Amino acid sequence: MTAAPARTDALIEELRARFDNRLSTAAAVREQHGRDESYHRAMPPDAVVFAQSTEDVRDIVLICRKHNAPIIPFGSGTSLEGQVAALKGGVCIDLSQMNRIVAVNSQDLDCTVEPGVTRKQLNEHLRDQGLFFPIDPGANASIGGMTATRASGTNAVRYGTMRENVLALTVVLADGRVIRTSKRARKSSAGYDLTRLFVGSEGTLGVITDITLRLYGIPEAISSAVCSFPTLDDAVQAVIVTIQSGMPVARIELLDDVMLDAINKYSKTSFRVAPTLFLEFHGSERAVAEQAEAVQGIAKDFGGTDFAWTAKPEDRTKMWQARHDAAYAAMAMRPNGKIWPTDVCVPISRLAECIAETKRDLDGSFLMAPIVGHVGDGNFHLAFVLDPSKPEELKEAERLNERLVMRALAMDGTSTGEHGIGYGKLDFLVAEHGEAVSVMRAVKMALDPDNLMNPGKVVRI
Amino acid sequence: MTAAPARTDALIEELRARFDNRLSTAAAVREQHGRDESYHRAMPPDAVVFAQSTEDVRDIVLICRKHNAPIIPFGSGTSLEGQVAALKGGVCIDLSQMNRIVAVNSQDLDCTVEPGVTRKQLNEHLRDQGLFFPIDPGANASIGGMTATRASGTNAVRYGTMRENVLALTVVLADGRVIRTSKRARKSSAGYDLTRLFVGSEGTLGVITDITLRLYGIPEAISSAVCSFPTLDDAVQAVIVTIQSGMPVARIELLDDVMLDAINKYSKTSFRVAPTLFLEFHGSERAVAEQAEAVQGIAKDFGGTDFAWTAKPEDRTKMWQARHDAAYAAMAMRPNGKIWPTDVCVPISRLAECIAETKRDLDGSFLMAPIVGHVGDGNFHLAFVLDPSKPEELKEAERLNERLVMRALAMDGTSTGEHGIGYGKLDFLVAEHGEAVSVMRAVKMALDPDNLMNPGKVVRI
Repeated sequence: MTAAPARTDALIEELRARFDNRLSTAAAVREQHGRDESYHRAMPPDAVVFAQSTEDVRDIVLICRKHNAPIIPFGSGTSLEGQVAALKGGVCIDLSQMNRIVAVNSQDLDCTVEPGVTRKQLNEHLRDQGLFFPIDPGANASIGGMTATRASGTNAVRYGTMRENVLALTVVLADGRVIRTSKRARKSSAGYDLTRLFVGSEGTLGVITDITLRLYGIPEAISSAVCSFPTLDDAVQAVIVTIQSGMPVARIELLDDVMLDAINKYSKTSFRVAPTLFLEFHGSERAVAEQAEAVQGIAKDFGGTDFAWTAKPEDRTKMWQARHDAAYAAMAMRPNGKIWPTDVCVPISRLAECIAETKRDLDGSFLMAPIVGHVGDGNFHLAFVLDPSKPEELKEAERLNERLVMRALAMDGTSTGEHGIGYGKLDFLVAEHGEAVSVMRAVKMALDPDNLMNPGKVVRI
Repeated sequence: MTAAPARTDALIEELRARFDNRLSTAAAVREQHGRDESYHRAMPPDAVVFAQSTEDVRDIVLICRKHNAPIIPFGSGTSLEGQVAALKGGVCIDLSQMNRIVAVNSQDLDCTVEPGVTRKQLNEHLRDQGLFFPIDPGANASIGGMTATRASGTNAVRYGTMRENVLALTVVLADGRVIRTSKRARKSSAGYDLTRLFVGSEGTLGVITDITLRLYGIPEAISSAVCSFPTLDDAVQAVIVTIQSGMPVARIELLDDVMLDAINKYSKTSFRVAPTLFLEFHGSERAVAEQAEAVQGIAKDFGGTDFAWTAKPEDRTKMWQARHDAAYAAMAMRPNGKIWPTDVCVPISRLAECIAETKRDLDGSFLMAPIVGHVGDGNFHLAFVLDPSKPEELKEAERLNERLVMRALAMDGTSTGEHGIGYGKLDFLVAEHGEAVSVMRAVKMALDPDNLMNPGKVVRI
C-alpha cells in the first residue's frame, strides 16, 4: 500500500470530524470492504465511510482530494474482477445506507433510486404496482454497482443490459461537483451521452449517487421451460436457431453437466445431469404458449428431451433461484472452494465453436470449471473452482482464462460480457480495444486528472 | 469566415495534390455543402473533398491539422440544426461515395456499412435476406449522419434509436489515429462505452468511417391503422394508455389537423383533416390482430373514429411515405417556404399537457406550424413554415421555439429528441444540462484540443 501514514492520519481525522461514527477503521470492516465475491485477495482501504446522501459523498470526495487519497465506491461487494479492492489504499465509500427508492413514475415506466437499493428490494417495492426491473445478475447486487459495472443477467436477451435501461444519473465528480447526466425523457440527442459514459465506468470517473431506470409492466403471462440435450453443441445450436428466428424469448440459459450436478447438490434440486437449457417466455397467454411450442419444436430437432414447461410461480421461482445461486453452487464443489469467475461474449454464429473449444481445454485440465451462460446474447461464464493459496491452481486458471479471452477476441467477441474489467482484466482491455484504450485514458485524465477515483481499475494511468 | 486566405491557399494546394479532382472549391458545390434541410442559411466550407476510404479521411484530417483548418463531415445534408454549416470555414469531408455495405452477418443479425450508405439503400439490400434496419428519420439520411446525430424515427418506440442499434464504430480521431470502438458482441462491459460517446457527437469528436448495426428479421405480419380523434388531447390520451399498457406497438405517430391538410395537398392523399394517429403492428398474424383490436378499443374510449386497418403492403407504403414526407409537405404550405423544424421529448405522463400548451401558443401566433410526432416516446415536432428573409418571422419562430423548449425542460424533458444540437440549440444544451456541459467540454478538449472537429457545434469552446 502506498498510503503514507501521515497522510492517512490527517485524512482520517478530518473525515472523523465530519462523519463521526459513520467512519470506520476497524480491521474487520476494512477487510470486508476490500474484497468481492471472487478469488481476488482482500486489499483493504484505510477507512470506510457510510454515506447517506449525495452531500456526504461530495464531502468525502472533497476531503479525500485535499489529502490526495484514493476514493473507492462500494455497493454490495458482489463484483467479480476486484472492482472494490483498494489497490492504493484510500477511502471506501459504502453506499449501502443510501437505499431509498426516491420516486416511481408508474405512468412513465421509470423510477429513481439511490445506489444502495438492491435489485430484489426494488422488485419487491414495484410488484404491487404491476411493474418490474428486469436486470438480474446472480447476486442480489446494488443498483449502483450494477450501473457502475454495466451488469446484465438472464433477461438481457429480451430487455437489454444496464446500458439500455439507465435513463439518467446523478454523479459526484472527482472535483466534488455534482452533475445530472440527463433528463427523464425516453430519448434525447442533446449533447454527448454522459449517461452511457458513466454506466460501466466502475467508479473511475465519479461516484454515482442516484439512478433513473426504465421499468416494465409485469407480463400478463410467464412460463418457464427446462430441456436437456445429448451434447453441449446440440443445446447451443438450439439456442442459435431460436435467436435467429427472432422469437422474443425472455430468458435462454445454458448450463453444462458439471453445473447441473453442482446445482443439484447445492440447491437440493433434481435436474437431469446433462447439457440443459432453462427458458422463460413473457407475453399474453396465447403468445407464451405459441413461443413455448415453437421452441419445443426447435429443441426436438437437436435431440432435446424431457421438455417440461410450467406456468406455476413456485416452480419458476425455484428454478431461477437455483440458476442465480450457480456461483455459490460452484464454490461448494470443494471444501473452502473459491471461484475465479470469467465471462466472455461472442457473436452468436461463433458461440458453438467457442464453447466447444473451451470445453476441450477444460477436459484437458486438472481444474474443474462449470459452464453457464446467457447464451441468447452469446455470453457465457466459466467459474474455475480453486484454492487461491495454491499457486499451481491459480496459474492453471490464468492460463485457461487467457486462452478463453483470446479465443473470444479472435471471434470478434469481448473479454467480458458483464463482469467488467476491474483490475482482473486490465491487460485484456488492451488486447480487445488497442488504440481505443488511449481514448479511454484521455477521457479518464480529463475527468480525474489526479487519478483518485478508484485508481488502478479499467484503464492503467 | 475566419479562414485567412494564405492558410486556405496552402491547404487547398496540398489537398489537391493528394485528391486531385475529388477536391472541389466550386461555389455551387461549397454552397450545397454548407446548408442542411432547415432554414439555417448556407455557411459554405472553403473546399469539399469526396472521401472514398478511411485512409482518405485520415489523410484529410492530417492535412487539415497541419494547416489548422476545421473539418466538417457531410453525409446527405439532411440535418436540421445546422450541423453541416462551416461556421469557421475549413474543409467539408463528403462521405457519400463511401457507400459500400461491407458485411451482412445474417446469422448474427448485424451488418457493417460505410457512412454514406442511406437507410433506404440498406433496407433494399437487406430485403432479400428477410432482414431490416428499423431506424427511419423522415429524410433518406445516411447511416453516418444518423449515427452522428443519434437519430431515430417512427419505429423507435419498439426498436430504440441509433443509441441502442449501433454496435461498433470505426472513427478517425482529430490527430489522425483510427480506432475501433467495440467488437461485434451483443453486449460488453469492457471499458468505457466509446461507441455511445461517438453516437450523437455530431462530428465534433472524430469522423465516423464505418458503422456496425443491429438488424431485425422482417416480422411475419405487419399491419397499419389510421384513426382520427375529436381533439389533439384525445389522440394523445389514447397514445398514453396504449404505451402504459405495455403493448409492443411498432409505430404510433400523431399528426394534427394542420399537418394532415398539408400532407393531403403534397402527397395527394385524402386523410380526414383532424388530429390523427398512424399506427403499425409487427409480429405473428395472431399477435398483430390482437394488438390492432386492443388499440381500436382504447381509441374508441377517447372518441377515435374511422379506425381503418390494413395489411396491404401498397397501402402501408403510401401512408408511411406520406408521413416521411411531412417536412416537405410543410415547406409546400407556402410558396418558397422554408421550415424551422424543432423537436422536444418529454416523459409521456406530461405529453398531453405539453402539446396542449404548445398548440395554445400556436393558436395565438401569426406563424403556421404543423405538429407531428413520434408520440409513443413522448417526442414531437413543430415545423415553423416561414420566409427566412423576413426578420419578424424568424423572431416569432425563435420566441415560440424557446417557449417550447423551456416548457419541455420544465417537464423533465429534453431540448431535442432526435434532431441534435448543431449550432441551433447550443444555448438550450446549457439550459438542459447545466454543469454537465462542462464535462462534455472536458471530453471535447481531451479528444480535440485544437477544436478542429466541426467547431461551434454541440458545445461552445
